[in-house]
Amino acid sequence: MARPSTPRGQGRTRVTVAALELFARRGVSGTSLQDIADHLGVTKAAVYYQFRSKEEIVLAVVEDAFADLRGFVEEAEAEPTGRAATERALVGLVDLMIAHRQAIAALILDPEVGRILESHPDLMALTDRLHALLVGPRSGLSRRVAASVVGSGLAHAGMDPDLADVSDADLRRELLAVGRAVLLGQG
Amino acid sequence: MARPSTPRGQGRTRVTVAALELFARRGVSGTSLQDIADHLGVTKAAVYYQFRSKEEIVLAVVEDAFADLRGFVEEAEAEPTGRAATERALVGLVDLMIAHRQAIAALILDPEVGRILESHPDLMALTDRLHALLVGPRSGLSRRVAASVVGSGLAHAGMDPDLADVSDADLRRELLAVGRAVLLGQG
Repeated sequence: MARPSTPRGQGRTRVTVAALELFARRGVSGTSLQDIADHLGVTKAAVYYQFRSKEEIVLAVVEDAFADLRGFVEEAEAEPTGRAATERALVGLVDLMIAHRQAIAALILDPEVGRILESHPDLMALTDRLHALLVGPRSGLSRRVAASVVGSGLAHAGMDPDLADVSDADLRRELLAVGRAVLLGQG
Repeated sequence: MARPSTPRGQGRTRVTVAALELFARRGVSGTSLQDIADHLGVTKAAVYYQFRSKEEIVLAVVEDAFADLRGFVEEAEAEPTGRAATERALVGLVDLMIAHRQAIAALILDPEVGRILESHPDLMALTDRLHALLVGPRSGLSRRVAASVVGSGLAHAGMDPDLADVSDADLRRELLAVGRAVLLGQG
């Protein structure tokens, strides 16, 4: 029997949407439960009713992104060659960035989010698998540095104010070109 | 007549060193004057004696980096070709990243630092000039996206825990290779 959509579920979504706006603007570390309550015009107790901690809010916010991540990492790992696996992982990563363009850099580059993810081995294992796909089977220093630059550079480009005028389709195409140039040696 | 080195000058350095440690660990937004005082084992009033606000501390921390930045931006602008100017700016940027390896990403990617810099037109003008050098005279969309990815990617690589074992010399060489591949089309 399907559970009815409850006010509590709607409340959770309102909190995560408000939290994401504040995280993108001030960083996760600079956003308190009180800030989120103020932004929604409710009491801190009302936010506590939905989430027991900021960590729970962060995890709820990244849940969808991690579901997408799991999907394309598994597809990439099933590719027959290292090169095809890197290409699939790169496309998945760019698509994820484009889908969460404003928010994702604020989340994945934030030191507090890093600490929260470190205490969730299942999520860390997934990012390690993505990293291994980007580095590829010949994991020399050059590829390790290239994967680091591309990974964080793609994430940041999505929220770069200098690129705010660029459409999602154009940004996706150009990010894939940069990623392929660095990781796969294609211009 | 030269002013003697005063306890106040030493105190300022102690505050900026402590602040930088905390900024790198928690982000600027997540660090208060009280946190800095606690880290130093002094009262908040003692920190106020040196700096009137966190903004003043952030500006003191980035002062040296901006002096370096001004130097290599002016050198790059004096180069005879757009290609040579981009190359000079890239080398200057990588050297700056390596010199401030742990700290710089925490600073330049932090949304609060971005807001502080925005209220200082002289510093903003300098970063705009660096950006123009990286994008180059043919400022099409591809180069704009490439400059964004390289700029933030280089900054983040300096503090990537996956690259913590890489020596400064090795990291410098590999970052230059990635930057040249993306911006100048050299593998």
